[in-house]
Amino acid sequence: MKELKNLTYGIVGLGIMGGALAKAIRAHILSEAGTCGRVLASNRSKAPLVMAQEEAVVDGIYPLDQVSGMLAQCDLVYVCLYPEATLEFLKTHAQDFKPGAVVTDISGVKTHLVTGLPDGLGSHADFIVGHPMAGGEKEGYINSKASFFNNRNYILMPQPYNKPENIELLKSLITAIGFTRIVETDYRTHDYKIAFTSQLCHVIASALVQSADDNRVTEFGGGSYEDLTRIAMINAPLWTELFMADRTELIKHIQKFESQLSLMRTMLETQDAAGMESYLEQVRSKRMSMSRIDTVRKV
Amino acid sequence: MKELKNLTYGIVGLGIMGGALAKAIRAHILSEAGTCGRVLASNRSKAPLVMAQEEAVVDGIYPLDQVSGMLAQCDLVYVCLYPEATLEFLKTHAQDFKPGAVVTDISGVKTHLVTGLPDGLGSHADFIVGHPMAGGEKEGYINSKASFFNNRNYILMPQPYNKPENIELLKSLITAIGFTRIVETDYRTHDYKIAFTSQLCHVIASALVQSADDNRVTEFGGGSYEDLTRIAMINAPLWTELFMADRTELIKHIQKFESQLSLMRTMLETQDAAGMESYLEQVRSKRMSMSRIDTVRKV
Repeated sequence: MKELKNLTYGIVGLGIMGGALAKAIRAHILSEAGTCGRVLASNRSKAPLVMAQEEAVVDGIYPLDQVSGMLAQCDLVYVCLYPEATLEFLKTHAQDFKPGAVVTDISGVKTHLVTGLPDGLGSHADFIVGHPMAGGEKEGYINSKASFFNNRNYILMPQPYNKPENIELLKSLITAIGFTRIVETDYRTHDYKIAFTSQLCHVIASALVQSADDNRVTEFGGGSYEDLTRIAMINAPLWTELFMADRTELIKHIQKFESQLSLMRTMLETQDAAGMESYLEQVRSKRMSMSRIDTVRKV
Repeated sequence: MKELKNLTYGIVGLGIMGGALAKAIRAHILSEAGTCGRVLASNRSKAPLVMAQEEAVVDGIYPLDQVSGMLAQCDLVYVCLYPEATLEFLKTHAQDFKPGAVVTDISGVKTHLVTGLPDGLGSHADFIVGHPMAGGEKEGYINSKASFFNNRNYILMPQPYNKPENIELLKSLITAIGFTRIVETDYRTHDYKIAFTSQLCHVIASALVQSADDNRVTEFGGGSYEDLTRIAMINAPLWTELFMADRTELIKHIQKFESQLSLMRTMLETQDAAGMESYLEQVRSKRMSMSRIDTVRKV
């Protein structure tokens, strides 16, 4: 099997996630003496590339219009672009990858990718569909940290065309940079579940911010409102794209949530204290059972 | 003015909040050499009292049926009971306080207290209506920490009968135990604002837990769902009482939130990407402007 420390890594899109991946690979995999691995990066704007090179996070930088020269050298490529741009990039550059390369992505929705690339990248390179469940509210390379991935979940959606040894290689990378749970599933389950755990939460946080009378409400808070709305400091173009791409599943989850909210409102309107107490007891016990389970399993 | 370090403090109800207050007073006010202050505590069950005494957090313990003997000694009493029980306690023991004592509470709703005690405790003791905006998900003395109050908000609702020097005394205590912002307001504003920043958030978190298909959803999460539902590990009897007591205001806030949620759902249903992006831009900028403002001010 290929050794992680001797690979050439390529990062396409050096934003908050691409930057964190580059930093984590540098810190956890290429920091030992005697490694001959490298990290190369390509990005539309030049500033993050220059910064990453100055910080010795990356070994080589490529403007996006010269990305083919980078791809030809890379054993493992992380495409860290917005969802639609990821599909577009993979289609455009399918023949530019190094033969036998492992290519993966970070997109928060997957249906368009799997249906848009039914055979992946063909026999040329092995595209593994994946989703690192991590990040931060702030954008850009400058806000990226190698520590983002510590103790986080990673979702993999292996396709029939993927080579088992490449999936194993990617898993060893994922574990090496800090993730503690790898869940394998199919893209439909992913898009349905993510619409709930991620997108619905962002919708709720956003609606809660817009429900505030003014921006001084936090003076009356004990921290709950801040906790529930922190993720509302949102990257609007990215999340619009995610919401719209996964809107069918997201609408279902919003409706389910609206029903529960309406149930609680009705108990208040009818002064059903006994019903409310029993509802809250169920909530407590269900939430307490949702502890993190740090194991690799199939769903 | 009375010196905080020489007062006798009484804590009625040694749960998570009463316990944290006792610990914070011990740590920040009575830890110096040469102080002659004391902390006494009363509680329905004996176990927390014994534990607090063994930990040298309190100097004297009183079963609840002997609380009058404690009240007679205390210069400053914190009533840390559930909202209805607080009113009941103050009515029952109005004549038991040491003459001139300052008495305050921690109840999360205030209308019933202010309307139920239009003259406070009469000329006997000075009851100051207050709400420390702090706490934890877990219950009981055993989960209380002196650090709960660091950098938190405290709301005071001075009444016409309150003596200015007593309000100043309480404020100096509040600041000494870690709070960094004291907001003064009236009980109606308090109950309206708290129904939003605290109760609505607990309703949303609870409805979000009940919307989950199962208790394994967190395997697909990047942390947002956990952050939004942490407060759903809820004390059901207490929150039922808070919700019901403040239900008129809470229902209004739920309806406002439901309108915003419905607006977002409609944009998804009509595939209004431009509308969604502009909505999310507004959300981001509104949320970013909600930074903490650590000053004492009147609202």
